[in-house]
Amino acid sequence: MPDATKYFDLPSPFAMKRGGALTGARLAYETWGTLDAGRDNAILILTGLSPSAHAAANAQDPTPGWWEEMLGPGKPIDTRRWFVVCVNSLGSCKGSTGPASIDPATGKVYKLTFPELTLEDVGNAAFALLHGLGIDRLACLIGNSMGGMSALGWLLHHPGSVRAHISISTAPQAQPFAIAIRSLQREAIRLDPNWNNGNYDDAHYPETGMSIARKLGVITYRSAMEWVGRFARIRLDAETRPGDDPFGVEFQVESYLAGHARRFVRSFDPNCYLYLSRASDWFDIAEYGDGDADAALARIEVERALVIGVSTDILFPLSQQQQIAAGLTAAGAKVDFVPLDSPQGHDAFLVDIPRFGAAIAAFLAAL
Amino acid sequence: MPDATKYFDLPSPFAMKRGGALTGARLAYETWGTLDAGRDNAILILTGLSPSAHAAANAQDPTPGWWEEMLGPGKPIDTRRWFVVCVNSLGSCKGSTGPASIDPATGKVYKLTFPELTLEDVGNAAFALLHGLGIDRLACLIGNSMGGMSALGWLLHHPGSVRAHISISTAPQAQPFAIAIRSLQREAIRLDPNWNNGNYDDAHYPETGMSIARKLGVITYRSAMEWVGRFARIRLDAETRPGDDPFGVEFQVESYLAGHARRFVRSFDPNCYLYLSRASDWFDIAEYGDGDADAALARIEVERALVIGVSTDILFPLSQQQQIAAGLTAAGAKVDFVPLDSPQGHDAFLVDIPRFGAAIAAFLAAL
Repeated sequence: MPDATKYFDLPSPFAMKRGGALTGARLAYETWGTLDAGRDNAILILTGLSPSAHAAANAQDPTPGWWEEMLGPGKPIDTRRWFVVCVNSLGSCKGSTGPASIDPATGKVYKLTFPELTLEDVGNAAFALLHGLGIDRLACLIGNSMGGMSALGWLLHHPGSVRAHISISTAPQAQPFAIAIRSLQREAIRLDPNWNNGNYDDAHYPETGMSIARKLGVITYRSAMEWVGRFARIRLDAETRPGDDPFGVEFQVESYLAGHARRFVRSFDPNCYLYLSRASDWFDIAEYGDGDADAALARIEVERALVIGVSTDILFPLSQQQQIAAGLTAAGAKVDFVPLDSPQGHDAFLVDIPRFGAAIAAFLAAL
Repeated sequence: MPDATKYFDLPSPFAMKRGGALTGARLAYETWGTLDAGRDNAILILTGLSPSAHAAANAQDPTPGWWEEMLGPGKPIDTRRWFVVCVNSLGSCKGSTGPASIDPATGKVYKLTFPELTLEDVGNAAFALLHGLGIDRLACLIGNSMGGMSALGWLLHHPGSVRAHISISTAPQAQPFAIAIRSLQREAIRLDPNWNNGNYDDAHYPETGMSIARKLGVITYRSAMEWVGRFARIRLDAETRPGDDPFGVEFQVESYLAGHARRFVRSFDPNCYLYLSRASDWFDIAEYGDGDADAALARIEVERALVIGVSTDILFPLSQQQQIAAGLTAAGAKVDFVPLDSPQGHDAFLVDIPRFGAAIAAFLAAL
């Protein structure tokens, strides 16, 4: 199987924000393009909750990545000009150290003994990688969704390390609607008897809980408007309806959700999901502004910023993108705020490449 | 315990839309005010999925009802003028016959042997009650949420039986976002091992599934905007946080959802929930317009209509209320369309009595 993953050993011990430290931890990452001699053409991408570092195909792994149309030669993030790094978040399970990794102190999987994880830890670990790559200053730090929160944490902890910032469909602090959704996702996993307080294995895996969590995620990642056009009230053909369950899948939208859940359930570790989900709820930039999120944003040091949001996003509403744009403007940055009418909701940055790509390409071209 | 419930024996057999018939079925209902000699001052209310017929206090039961501030002497639905009937939906578990009732043919609880239920059946049963009360024509038929869909079904099946109609936060057909949410609620119940294919009892009750379903309901019944103001990021005091569960309730919004779930779980029958939820997904007025919802709406015969919707409602979006208003106008009715900016989302009709009450009072005063 082709694999472009590289690994970076984090400084050991690696101190965590809420206490404790990791020993022998590492980050998985991938790169595209070439770092130039001045080391000033680097872009780093912090991802949403579930993606790996494989954002796009590269020489070592030609399989398409999760942002395939955005990243590559001649694409909006043009790898002929930029040296691009994408990091699998600390706490995830796609190569970076997290709750599914072996604790070197015990030789056993961390599970719930993994220290409490915050998005600041995710940002700090990625910053350590940047340092390890011998790069003092990023040309641009990009954060999507959860990665956008990690990026804000990075910017506050490491002033001067980033020249330009692209903030996409994210939040300066978790709002109660998003907390409620994520809390319910975590509850569905934890209530699955197979979760067993984090002590599941492949034979006893919380498939039900993960499936409900994923479906709820997909519902909130997309938009009602998109689905009216896409699914309407189309029913599955009688012959493709599974079994004779009177309450089973009948409409195409139900089958779509089931497909998403099926592809996700075994590919993401449930404990890692719980840790990253809780970290998202905890994130609150107001901590850096004496309880005032705007004051915290105004402390961020970047020269230029692009802030993109989507009007149909119910999880990270446009109002929060406006708040980030206003805060970075108050901080003295030259800010492009691009509100988009993409119908796809929160996930638009993954699929509405025409709109997002144009905004990102134009911003990067002017750097 | 005070009880104002009255019972109406449905014609037996009572034929169901999708096949089968009920024998010896009944409806629970309550009334307020006095039917006048001309029998032309009757208002009938069809409810959302979970409420009982106890919409408000009355002489037999002074406990507050689910629409207490809307209904009573001097209130927006003024019971000094109107004779008001509220019906517990067929298929529910608050006195009307449903999956939790005894099947007289077997002497056992129906459970999943209850015939497939549609909202047209709910409307037809309520129409039979009206007939049983000796009323030929309603002054006004009011439907909220699911009850609004049942009302549209009624209006198409029984032309001439209603003079005026109040349609509140409902839909001419279930859209895929609402279907997705309800499908996931049903799945959470069905995946609870205690559901046991409908064969639970009090000792083995699908509490987990019902709790997840209710929390998801509450999340979609309210609005993100309301919650920013109401809960923000307020945390529970350490001493009121239950146990030392690292993923347990921490934010006030989580505790709010838990409270809602706790109050609901044992008070509503899970099989009835499944039947009514699926009936909502099935509802599609386009069946009465050769596949065209607008054509079906244009067939409805009422003289006047009030259509109210809320801009923050994500489950029954304002666009669907606009569609109903336009359709009834095309049908020749004099229609008042009242879009409201209530922050409370779909539930606004239950709690934003100032806005809803004013609209309803003005409409009824002009009848």
